[in-house]
Amino acid sequence: MEAMAASLPEFLKKIKGRGQGFYEVLDDTKTADSIEVFAKKTSGRYEKIVVLGIGGSALGTKCLQQALLPLFKMRGNMAANVADKATTPAATMGPIPQLHVLDNIDPTLLRDLDATLDLKKTLFIVVSKSGDTIETLAQYFYFQKRVQEVGLKEADHFVFITDADKGLLREIAAKNPNIQTFEVPKNVGGRFSVLTPVSLVPAALMGLDIRQLLHGAQMMRDVFLNLDAEKNLCFQLAAIQYLLGQKGKTINVFMPYSSHLIGFTEWVTQLLAESIGKALNEKGERVNVGLTPLRAVGATDQHAQSQLFHEGPNDKLIVFFEIENFGEPLAIPNPYPDHPAVSFLKNATFDQLLKTEKQGTEQSLIECDRPNITIRLDCLDEASLGGLFMLFEGATAFLAEFYGINAFDQPGVERSKRLGREILKYI
Amino acid sequence: MEAMAASLPEFLKKIKGRGQGFYEVLDDTKTADSIEVFAKKTSGRYEKIVVLGIGGSALGTKCLQQALLPLFKMRGNMAANVADKATTPAATMGPIPQLHVLDNIDPTLLRDLDATLDLKKTLFIVVSKSGDTIETLAQYFYFQKRVQEVGLKEADHFVFITDADKGLLREIAAKNPNIQTFEVPKNVGGRFSVLTPVSLVPAALMGLDIRQLLHGAQMMRDVFLNLDAEKNLCFQLAAIQYLLGQKGKTINVFMPYSSHLIGFTEWVTQLLAESIGKALNEKGERVNVGLTPLRAVGATDQHAQSQLFHEGPNDKLIVFFEIENFGEPLAIPNPYPDHPAVSFLKNATFDQLLKTEKQGTEQSLIECDRPNITIRLDCLDEASLGGLFMLFEGATAFLAEFYGINAFDQPGVERSKRLGREILKYI
Repeated sequence: MEAMAASLPEFLKKIKGRGQGFYEVLDDTKTADSIEVFAKKTSGRYEKIVVLGIGGSALGTKCLQQALLPLFKMRGNMAANVADKATTPAATMGPIPQLHVLDNIDPTLLRDLDATLDLKKTLFIVVSKSGDTIETLAQYFYFQKRVQEVGLKEADHFVFITDADKGLLREIAAKNPNIQTFEVPKNVGGRFSVLTPVSLVPAALMGLDIRQLLHGAQMMRDVFLNLDAEKNLCFQLAAIQYLLGQKGKTINVFMPYSSHLIGFTEWVTQLLAESIGKALNEKGERVNVGLTPLRAVGATDQHAQSQLFHEGPNDKLIVFFEIENFGEPLAIPNPYPDHPAVSFLKNATFDQLLKTEKQGTEQSLIECDRPNITIRLDCLDEASLGGLFMLFEGATAFLAEFYGINAFDQPGVERSKRLGREILKYI
Repeated sequence: MEAMAASLPEFLKKIKGRGQGFYEVLDDTKTADSIEVFAKKTSGRYEKIVVLGIGGSALGTKCLQQALLPLFKMRGNMAANVADKATTPAATMGPIPQLHVLDNIDPTLLRDLDATLDLKKTLFIVVSKSGDTIETLAQYFYFQKRVQEVGLKEADHFVFITDADKGLLREIAAKNPNIQTFEVPKNVGGRFSVLTPVSLVPAALMGLDIRQLLHGAQMMRDVFLNLDAEKNLCFQLAAIQYLLGQKGKTINVFMPYSSHLIGFTEWVTQLLAESIGKALNEKGERVNVGLTPLRAVGATDQHAQSQLFHEGPNDKLIVFFEIENFGEPLAIPNPYPDHPAVSFLKNATFDQLLKTEKQGTEQSLIECDRPNITIRLDCLDEASLGGLFMLFEGATAFLAEFYGINAFDQPGVERSKRLGREILKYI
């Protein structure tokens, strides 16, 4: 580990040399301003917001929604919840619209959603960095036609988030300048784009505090750029992932003890799978490296996947996420305090039960010689989420340097895209 | 493969000798009758049904809900959809209640749900085979207190699904005989219990046709019991999983091209992880075997995990699921037929796009030497789901015989439960 620490300055220099903007966009206050202006302008106007996007255009937004809004949606309920925090922009906004992320082209999914929409009160946010993503364009064409059919103006119901000057979406916007657009910075890849307009626009419309998101990420960026390995959490995380990977722990289980972080495990799955799963290293040698992300959630998966983690092949690193503060404790009533099945539940709260189950699982994994680490958050809020995104983006950048690969391309998916298009031509 | 086929009769004999009832419960028409009577009796009475359960008590129900009901929930909408099929029991029922499955003890999850409930119009279904599952009892105690606080009768708002005579839930029911109960058969383990009252009761209350579910499973049971390996799909699937596992493909990716089958990938994850992830074989030798299930969904994960599947370590078998018939084709309008980004999209439908993307991915995986198989369903309905459950239950039973392990125990999770309880005592 000490020998590894010596490579930190060199890795950081290499990362900076790649010209990637994921850790610099945090300072773009001008864009944050314009997003907040837009959120204020549209406040109260829409009942539903529908994000049309796939992969990196969807996962960050889904993660933020699940992490920071109530898991069971009620319109009034959501607004009340967000408005509790009197300092957030939401406190000065109208009712918060309900958000849906449409990230697949399953026809029943479109039909099901369409049946629930009042188009007059719906805003579609079309998100594609390239502006050419076929799944997203197909969804857009579908809803564009629907909006036209009922005689509504396209510019009142569509927002584009795309490249500044390339791609079909940008061309369409150029012809219809009334459509509001936001830019995905050219030097930020899709899976690193959660802190750009890609997710900041939907976040602001949901009433989330995007300044705090950026602030939390900025704090973690200082950690990421720290040349002292003992203080650089991103580097430490990458070193653990790499070293254990070399020892055959090639599956990384991401297991938060909170239902609110299920969306985060999906976000980090894309980040790790696409960034580190590579056939060739930078010298052009065939290496076929990769760590396979696996999603779990505690306590639920103690009853579904835990058996395998304890007794199956010893090929996993388990990354727990624990939340310190769940708000006001919620007591577990116990009407049968003397019954052996529940006698240990005395004056307990739900968060205590959740935490002790996590400790029990952690302890028994150690006894089975299964490596695990815990990432602990004080609470779930915009700042902690921003920090968590940056922690894993930074770690992934370092991890690629350990493997000698490029974290920022995805050569393996082009072939399937091309083949799909070829087949479609002959239908 | 031919040598393997010879072991089919012996394996089947061993499986039958284990006294497991998962393939026999399908014939329990008496229980199906009583479930339908209960569904009719309560028809129109509740707005919401809340299932309190975890692991096998939740996953089958979540799977059925996602597979067979609209993905975006609207009360009127759901009822209309189910009532379309004039032959189903739902056609003669009142409005279909909305169903929530509460499968975690995250306190915010309980709070969020509680805030949306009108307790007078809510039915809680408490599901625990042992009757002693601590997470489920804690949830039950919480909502029992809430129902009492507002002066409602417990028997009007709770149903228990549990063992016939053991455990705390059964004891409580014995003292309050007005509470409706259903039995989980003693010889059916939690992860094999989807076709027992565990999921049949919620399914019937959602307006699904439980006879067709059972019928589809019965058809596949004939396949499972067929002594000819060429006709036994369960055996073939297990043989493929085992053989490729022996060649280092120890990760099984389950990737349906349909958002409706995401819940199925969660159900099959538990089935495979808990049944096959075992430290000891039946001779008591340490083997630490297991196949690691990994969830994906097409086309979405072409933009998230596909890069890793194509270029990362060659340690995966990809199991695609394809649906032949999505109902009335949904056209993709193309206002820019001459634009190079979308020129190949001419008179195409969403299901064509979905299917060709799947073919493109399949083809490119083959070119990268990555093994994959496809399980094709005519359509998504009760019968096809019943068949799918039985296919994988049967395959898992065979798979355990290939490994020489017991598919039906879970010794590895007892330790973490015990440790959790120990820790809780000292808080």
